[in-house]
Amino acid sequence: MSDYKAPLNDMFFSFFEVNDMVSHYQSLGFDSDLDEDMVKSIFEEGAKLAEREVAPLYTIGDRQGCQLIDGEVKTPDGFKEAYQVYREGGWSSLMHAEEYGGQGLPQSIGSSLTETIGTANWAWSMYPGLSHGAMETLHQYGTDEQKQTYLTRLVSGEWTGTMCLTEPHCGTDLGLLRTKAVPQDDGSYQISGSKIWISAGDHDFVDNIVHIVLARAEGSPEGVKGISLFVVPKFNVNDDGSIGERNGVVTTGLEHKMGIHGNATCMLSFENAKGYLIGDLNKGLKCMFTFMNVARIGTSIQGLCHAQRAFQHSLEYAKDRLQMRSLTGAKFPDMAADPIIVHPDVRRMLMTQKAITEAGRAYIHYLTKQADLIAYGKDEATKKAADARLGLLTPIGKAFLTDLGHECANLGMQVFGGHGYVKDWPMEQNVRDARIGMIYEGTNGIQSLDLLGRKVALDQAKGLRSLTKEIRQWCKTANGAAKPYAKTISWMTRELEWMTIRILMKARKNPDEIGAASFDYLMFAGYMMMGWMWARSVQAAQSKVDGPNAEFYRAKLETAQFYFDRVLPRTRALKKTAMSGGKSIMSLSAEQFAL
Amino acid sequence: MSDYKAPLNDMFFSFFEVNDMVSHYQSLGFDSDLDEDMVKSIFEEGAKLAEREVAPLYTIGDRQGCQLIDGEVKTPDGFKEAYQVYREGGWSSLMHAEEYGGQGLPQSIGSSLTETIGTANWAWSMYPGLSHGAMETLHQYGTDEQKQTYLTRLVSGEWTGTMCLTEPHCGTDLGLLRTKAVPQDDGSYQISGSKIWISAGDHDFVDNIVHIVLARAEGSPEGVKGISLFVVPKFNVNDDGSIGERNGVVTTGLEHKMGIHGNATCMLSFENAKGYLIGDLNKGLKCMFTFMNVARIGTSIQGLCHAQRAFQHSLEYAKDRLQMRSLTGAKFPDMAADPIIVHPDVRRMLMTQKAITEAGRAYIHYLTKQADLIAYGKDEATKKAADARLGLLTPIGKAFLTDLGHECANLGMQVFGGHGYVKDWPMEQNVRDARIGMIYEGTNGIQSLDLLGRKVALDQAKGLRSLTKEIRQWCKTANGAAKPYAKTISWMTRELEWMTIRILMKARKNPDEIGAASFDYLMFAGYMMMGWMWARSVQAAQSKVDGPNAEFYRAKLETAQFYFDRVLPRTRALKKTAMSGGKSIMSLSAEQFAL
Repeated sequence: MSDYKAPLNDMFFSFFEVNDMVSHYQSLGFDSDLDEDMVKSIFEEGAKLAEREVAPLYTIGDRQGCQLIDGEVKTPDGFKEAYQVYREGGWSSLMHAEEYGGQGLPQSIGSSLTETIGTANWAWSMYPGLSHGAMETLHQYGTDEQKQTYLTRLVSGEWTGTMCLTEPHCGTDLGLLRTKAVPQDDGSYQISGSKIWISAGDHDFVDNIVHIVLARAEGSPEGVKGISLFVVPKFNVNDDGSIGERNGVVTTGLEHKMGIHGNATCMLSFENAKGYLIGDLNKGLKCMFTFMNVARIGTSIQGLCHAQRAFQHSLEYAKDRLQMRSLTGAKFPDMAADPIIVHPDVRRMLMTQKAITEAGRAYIHYLTKQADLIAYGKDEATKKAADARLGLLTPIGKAFLTDLGHECANLGMQVFGGHGYVKDWPMEQNVRDARIGMIYEGTNGIQSLDLLGRKVALDQAKGLRSLTKEIRQWCKTANGAAKPYAKTISWMTRELEWMTIRILMKARKNPDEIGAASFDYLMFAGYMMMGWMWARSVQAAQSKVDGPNAEFYRAKLETAQFYFDRVLPRTRALKKTAMSGGKSIMSLSAEQFAL
Repeated sequence: MSDYKAPLNDMFFSFFEVNDMVSHYQSLGFDSDLDEDMVKSIFEEGAKLAEREVAPLYTIGDRQGCQLIDGEVKTPDGFKEAYQVYREGGWSSLMHAEEYGGQGLPQSIGSSLTETIGTANWAWSMYPGLSHGAMETLHQYGTDEQKQTYLTRLVSGEWTGTMCLTEPHCGTDLGLLRTKAVPQDDGSYQISGSKIWISAGDHDFVDNIVHIVLARAEGSPEGVKGISLFVVPKFNVNDDGSIGERNGVVTTGLEHKMGIHGNATCMLSFENAKGYLIGDLNKGLKCMFTFMNVARIGTSIQGLCHAQRAFQHSLEYAKDRLQMRSLTGAKFPDMAADPIIVHPDVRRMLMTQKAITEAGRAYIHYLTKQADLIAYGKDEATKKAADARLGLLTPIGKAFLTDLGHECANLGMQVFGGHGYVKDWPMEQNVRDARIGMIYEGTNGIQSLDLLGRKVALDQAKGLRSLTKEIRQWCKTANGAAKPYAKTISWMTRELEWMTIRILMKARKNPDEIGAASFDYLMFAGYMMMGWMWARSVQAAQSKVDGPNAEFYRAKLETAQFYFDRVLPRTRALKKTAMSGGKSIMSLSAEQFAL
């Protein structure tokens, strides 16, 4: 049961039929070689890697976990070897620039790989996963020399990268950070301080690790305005590019976590480590956001991964486990009992998983189109618009999908009953692994503040209105079975706009109104966006329900109906709670909050 | 941080002011000694036991877990010694009959003890907890000899009990069970078969364990109609009551679970074990329900326990952890940042925990009043009515409170951010421990079928209408600040009645309509009942907001407002989804459900 089968059918449907990626690539000026066949073959190869190399390490990664031996991290058996296959297959370079050894494919393709290897084994996938943010950051802000020294080795997969932000006393509030950087005569900096929760912070996959580190340069101001970004390699790099002596980066401990045991979450002590400034002095937070946005998209995909994993296994179990008879009469009278998939309440759980997983996938593909536009858009206006759009979609994706991914993982456990709670079956690990997605890369509460307090409020909802306008325009073109869904979604975009205006007006008098509404507001937007994905899926599927693969397309229509009947109504509660204001949230004094 | 403080203030408020337990005891004919002072002193002593003896074993129980050594279970260090204190304090006998050595106190008092020791350490509390069901079953159905032999030793805490239902191929569907019982010449039975998931199935607290076992007697019919109940001791008992030779009950393994590691979840093999029939032949399921109903009330309380534990710790953390400034300006300008309790989204989580915990507690007290009435009611009609009422309240309590307990545990983790996910802090264990509540003693899906398909449907909603009528009558008496809440709840009882009629009518044509609606129906009822608890709490608190303990009473009013603003609106979604029918749940064929 710990195996994994990539849902290629649905990946293709979302990619080509819902999101029309081939035209998208053509409009970005990609070679006509990048057609459906080519993308499919990349997905298929990625699926093989995930199914054959990565998925088999799922359980062992959890049980063995990582060990810190003589200051070096030992990863679970087989992890290193699977990375070797990954690297040799050229997967690390897929979506990076050709001038640094990459294959120059768009991010939308790379993200689909993230889904397959991530569903196969999220903890494993984080080792290569963290590198992407480091590459993107170096690509955008690094000097030529830094790119030659570090970026090329990250692209080839020879080395991997990390992101070092958090310190024991500061997670969300990076302004408090204490790690300091003292400038040296040779232009480098001496970095000193403690960092915690560094995913893939040390491991045995590769010869060198490239840390991207937030620190405060000597003489810089307090708070976020004095933060700079540095590249700090585990081993110094000689002028000829060969690996030099060990840098002052010490792994002082590993976190003992609820899940993702296969990934080494490190405490790192920087002890006069040699580092190099990336980008401008005191502009580190801005540079860091490049990394963080990549990581947040990765975490959005994580939500999808855990939902998909739960769905696959619980569907299989529900078809297999015999228990009680259908209320409408025995469906398999020759067997001792009916398989539990005949029971409506079990179906409710399976259908919820299916509806969230498939809409989530379509959403991720839609989101990564924006990332493609930022990189390859024809002009600055296009890039800027895509950047604003991605800025809205990312916090929704991160918070909504990890929240629902966790829900779906828990539904998976529930379908398994008692078996779900014990380690002989793969459901409880999935729940434990899924839980971190709601916390790291900015908690889901922080995502909701980012959405409403920054992305929506700072441009007076212009970016939001551009999105809702696009949705309504699409809704006008919907026909047939998609039409009633489009009508609902179109109406919801108006509701969201109304909610936005009301909250922003209240927030002028009391800024706490933003925080009081933000989480429920984000979730409302998430359900609305998934509803749009379902309307688009119906639009794409409805003409194909009598052709080849008819059952697949018919299931799309039925699942959409389920989503609108049974999941989307949650927005009725969210609208009411988001609009109920901050008063009853804020009214208790500290004394009243006593136990 | 692994300590625990019993919320005595709120326990007293719910017990005496909301639920008026002293008059209740007087009306049941209890001695006037059983007054507020006496109950308070029992609660206070129970709190000391929980805080001093049981809570300190919380973390070690999780980390060490149980071990099976030479066929015997070794519990974590200190567990056995704490039980010794429990036993010597007479806590096992609290609510059991005086003629068998008990103290004859009502169940409502015992359940409050369940809350305190359960919040301190749920896994530990299950060892004595399981005994209560065994005692109740023996008390109700056992022969005089069985009572003398087993019940007296369970009451004194000299021995403990278990409940052996599940087999590898049958959990919910007990009709499939294979454990067999062969009658012997001496009137005993030889029991053979495999049982799994036996909580506290073996341990080192006591000299003997009394298993209550479901099995099929030789010659009995297939299915549930051929199931009988047996008492099977770990050690046979000699005629003089002394412990005899080892019976054929072998612990063949321990489950490796996600949580509640401190409790031994055993696989037991009955190998020609000597057992004795309890109650009538082939009426085992009915007898077993006595046990199960006790266990389900216990599990309802478990939901409350995890919510309370999460609330205590996250409140403390939120007052302590400094991160970011309040959006309305620095609240503690002298500190590096404000404590996170100033942020509305953190408060949303804390207030949700508080609102659920306090309403849950009032609900449990209300529920156990019914249990008291069954045992001590003045006439058969009273007992019967209480039994019907408890039959409604139990599945709601079990499913709603474990579901929300899990949500509150997860909110606790969320308040802690990254710290919540690591084992140095007590939040991730609470989430893992809480998760089982939704599964065992009948999954929450099964509870919802029990509520709607059995308890509500079988008497044509008569029992439900008796409850809604009581609620509306109370609502008429509400005044002041309680009045608007009462109005809302009164209206919701009408909605629930309307939903009930509609679903039952649809179910006449298609029985699957029950299963399609049941879970959302139960949750609707749960939120409504908690809303009623809040209305009752406001009614009780409002006259005291200017007296002693004023902040406590004012917080009640504010928290009620929060509940009605931010939690109760979830019923808007649940009503819609519960009423959306079975079609879109059931429409997918097996082929369409393929991956």
